[in-house]
Amino acid sequence: MNNRYLSGVEKLNELDPNAAEAMTEQFREVCPDLAKYTIEYPFGDVLQREGVDFKTRELATIAALTAMGNCQPQLKGHIKGALNIGCSQKEITEIILQMSVYAGFPAAINGMNIAKEVFEEH
Amino acid sequence: MNNRYLSGVEKLNELDPNAAEAMTEQFREVCPDLAKYTIEYPFGDVLQREGVDFKTRELATIAALTAMGNCQPQLKGHIKGALNIGCSQKEITEIILQMSVYAGFPAAINGMNIAKEVFEEH
Amino acid sequence: MNNRYLSGVEKLNELDPNAAEAMTEQFREVCPDLAKYTIEYPFGDVLQREGVDFKTRELATIAALTAMGNCQPQLKGHIKGALNIGCSQKEITEIILQMSVYAGFPAAINGMNIAKEVFEEH
Amino acid sequence: MNNRYLSGVEKLNELDPNAAEAMTEQFREVCPDLAKYTIEYPFGDVLQREGVDFKTRELATIAALTAMGNCQPQLKGHIKGALNIGCSQKEITEIILQMSVYAGFPAAINGMNIAKEVFEEH
Amino acid sequence: MNNRYLSGVEKLNELDPNAAEAMTEQFREVCPDLAKYTIEYPFGDVLQREGVDFKTRELATIAALTAMGNCQPQLKGHIKGALNIGCSQKEITEIILQMSVYAGFPAAINGMNIAKEVFEEH
Amino acid sequence: MNNRYLSGVEKLNELDPNAAEAMTEQFREVCPDLAKYTIEYPFGDVLQREGVDFKTRELATIAALTAMGNCQPQLKGHIKGALNIGCSQKEITEIILQMSVYAGFPAAINGMNIAKEVFEEH
Repeated sequence: MNNRYLSGVEKLNELDPNAAEAMTEQFREVCPDLAKYTIEYPFGDVLQREGVDFKTRELATIAALTAMGNCQPQLKGHIKGALNIGCSQKEITEIILQMSVYAGFPAAINGMNIAKEVFEEH
Repeated sequence: MNNRYLSGVEKLNELDPNAAEAMTEQFREVCPDLAKYTIEYPFGDVLQREGVDFKTRELATIAALTAMGNCQPQLKGHIKGALNIGCSQKEITEIILQMSVYAGFPAAINGMNIAKEVFEEH
Repeated sequence: MNNRYLSGVEKLNELDPNAAEAMTEQFREVCPDLAKYTIEYPFGDVLQREGVDFKTRELATIAALTAMGNCQPQLKGHIKGALNIGCSQKEITEIILQMSVYAGFPAAINGMNIAKEVFEEH
Repeated sequence: MNNRYLSGVEKLNELDPNAAEAMTEQFREVCPDLAKYTIEYPFGDVLQREGVDFKTRELATIAALTAMGNCQPQLKGHIKGALNIGCSQKEITEIILQMSVYAGFPAAINGMNIAKEVFEEH
Repeated sequence: MNNRYLSGVEKLNELDPNAAEAMTEQFREVCPDLAKYTIEYPFGDVLQREGVDFKTRELATIAALTAMGNCQPQLKGHIKGALNIGCSQKEITEIILQMSVYAGFPAAINGMNIAKEVFEEH
Repeated sequence: MNNRYLSGVEKLNELDPNAAEAMTEQFREVCPDLAKYTIEYPFGDVLQREGVDFKTRELATIAALTAMGNCQPQLKGHIKGALNIGCSQKEITEIILQMSVYAGFPAAINGMNIAKEVFEEH
């Protein structure tokens, strides 16, 4: 296990304490390196970086995933993760609402429905 | 002129002091209500809201526009605007770099080229 | 309640008599202003406009949502709405089929499956 | 030359009298069948169909291309074509403006800039 | 039945022996020409062509559908089809993994989950 | 310089002998780690992998970038690169033409125009 991987696991598990293990298990047979790379590059390289705090990074990710509109499972995961690292529900819904401007009302509505689902489960 | 419009002009001009007038002029003949609506809804309604500060909102917009990849003029405008309201070059490049994870390396590279262009003009 | 909101409710309910209430209820706790803004801007501003009749506007919306391919709930709602304001099944399927040209066969096939589902429920 | 091709040329040339020849010339060396297929399937099959008139079909295409946001040359061509078959500037700008709702303000603004350019050249 | 249609049925059924009949049945009432056109143009024209073998074409399609991220049913069908014409699981997972570079990790993860589902059913 | 970086430079330079240096120079001031990460992850990790040969990987990338439609500089670079590692013009145009099926004719036409430009410069 290299350092990028180890610090990636730690960072990913800040968002969701079971995420690194779940992702590793999910792709163990079909393509284990997808789990490895996802831990190493996004979490071991990018999200380790300084200059923007983790909460702002998660809000930026929620903005992008809401706007792209075709990554519901990841949007759900990042809304949960944002709550876990201390973003408020208000911050999350404000960012999703803001996406109505840049990506249209359907994107914002579909994103907000996912936020609602996460908040109710939380 | 309604209140949404007036406060929208003020908010838009925080990003770029000439933007409201330029947009109004640009669409004066072809469709003046597009300028009016753009001032009223995004800037008069959404960006007036509390709960997330203006700098974080601009970073979220930069994230979304970088990820969508088909709104270069708006990405350029929001990078300029983000600098004008006090975001650092570092914050902007970190958010664009982060998009390599969610939208791929071409999106991040194309976004970074726009940031480079803005920083050099600035 | 402002005039934009009131005329928006009326317009939205032409598409679906329960839609304004359902949308308001859906977002009441999580973000009530998303429902308010959706009623005000799309239905209270844009769809109130003259120059293109409501049926043609709905066909244009069905075209766009089919082509974008990531807004299935909205596509379903607008196909129902188009039928409610007098578009024929034939007009709707022709526009969806046409999208095979501009957005590819998967987009047209996925859109047609939604139309089929709506027609069978109708 | 099969019938689909011949009726496709005729239909395409209603939008722009030089389009079929220009497209054939453009791809003559690199991939002549792309021109042939574009004439046969979109113009020889789909746009020949009954049930929706040609003007409404062009407005639906303008809606989709504006919303997709990554097909500027085609959007420009279809705005010119729509004018040539009798759509008014007002109908075209209304449909583009409407896309602010479904695909966001950047898509509508970028589409409107193309319409402005076409109207000024026309 | 024209030749394009007949050779299209044959080609489509190489991917899945029931596909042509299932597609025809699916759209028989709502829009039978969507099934006809899907058989004629993609399978009767494009996939009949020489210059690239069928397996490489399927891997290219899997790449595109994974990257687009909004065509899950078609991605599932083409992964099944690729296996049926002799692509290995390894080739398919490598191409999906590669899309993390061009379209981001969510696209690759969502595509890999579909591959996993197909491989387990196979 | 780690091994991933060094083997990434070598792989990237197979596509274009100047690419690693040009990319490093391009982002030297604005965000040097974007160049470093682009060399390490896509070229040092993913494109090093076995199971699919480099030519097929490039055709898959050309498919994806053509279908996405918003990464013209990268599409141009990968068409050049594909020629440099031995793909034929015919293979490249066939894959771009094939994308008319999955992403629509505008995507294929815009991709083919880029291929034409590259072939004429080559």
